[in-house]
Amino acid sequence: MPTIYLAGPEVFLPDAQTVMGEKRRLARSFGFEPTGPGSDENQAPVGQLTAAAIYQRNDGAMRRADVCLANITPFRGISADPGTVYEIGFMIALGKRVWAYTNHPDDYGTRVRSIWYSGLDIDESSGRPRGPDGLSIENHGKADNLMIDIGIEEGGGRVIRAATLPADPERDLAAYTEALRYLRG
Amino acid sequence: MPTIYLAGPEVFLPDAQTVMGEKRRLARSFGFEPTGPGSDENQAPVGQLTAAAIYQRNDGAMRRADVCLANITPFRGISADPGTVYEIGFMIALGKRVWAYTNHPDDYGTRVRSIWYSGLDIDESSGRPRGPDGLSIENHGKADNLMIDIGIEEGGGRVIRAATLPADPERDLAAYTEALRYLRG
Repeated sequence: MPTIYLAGPEVFLPDAQTVMGEKRRLARSFGFEPTGPGSDENQAPVGQLTAAAIYQRNDGAMRRADVCLANITPFRGISADPGTVYEIGFMIALGKRVWAYTNHPDDYGTRVRSIWYSGLDIDESSGRPRGPDGLSIENHGKADNLMIDIGIEEGGGRVIRAATLPADPERDLAAYTEALRYLRG
Repeated sequence: MPTIYLAGPEVFLPDAQTVMGEKRRLARSFGFEPTGPGSDENQAPVGQLTAAAIYQRNDGAMRRADVCLANITPFRGISADPGTVYEIGFMIALGKRVWAYTNHPDDYGTRVRSIWYSGLDIDESSGRPRGPDGLSIENHGKADNLMIDIGIEEGGGRVIRAATLPADPERDLAAYTEALRYLRG
């Protein structure tokens, strides 16, 4: 049974154990053995571990895993949780199969305009859109920074994006389940 | 001369070429050959390349580089630029020496409180601080998500943090220069 590393920010949810338990149950139902943050159910909860111990646990799990499925739904801002982004880059460099899903239907450039610069004028005169602070807005139509999307695609993976924003983007598992279905093949 | 991959969000600045040129000049003055986003000065500007071409250029530069120095100053939010975070994870997995610097003096947990939940009550009753939305706040005292800081430290690198917020955090090069000095050894 291939091992799947479930990357994502669910560990920060107040009902983390419930949501992560359901994700693990679904992964098993598609033929994967789940691993990743908070998954060693018989060990100390993450809240009682040092930062170094958490890192080492995730590092080992990433190296042992066959596949990664990362939740890149925006977390406290316009982009994915940075821990999750680190893990995507790490596992791609290790040559692992990496897929991702996001419960936000808009691409990164659209979110930068709607969430970060909400209501402010975007300067389109230079050939690259820029916010009022002068910073250019990446507009390649990807779900997040192009390094994430293209890194995944170059390795044969896919980023599954929700068609519409679900009622509970932090917990919705429709795009997750769709990704598992593709990954099973 | 060791090759240094300069990761960071400077490519989005309106004066990107000036700032990145100065970073490259400083890197050379410390004995490094700089590479990374936007560094192939004789090629097409990044704005004219496809997302896949940008990725492939960065991918090759990361694999050829000996060292990475990443600017993890918060970018459009509370955390580092996600492309930079991807590159840190990628290069650590490749076994490269990775260092980082940030021009923001506060640790990640402090920034989540001051920037994301600014002025709102933090619930400290459960043993883990939580925002009013119930999401827990990572409070390991690191510059960003622990995966980034500990990944760098486990590999023998360091995260250099500015002692105070400089006047221009997007362009200030004091912490960058300090990191170069340590890296030269």
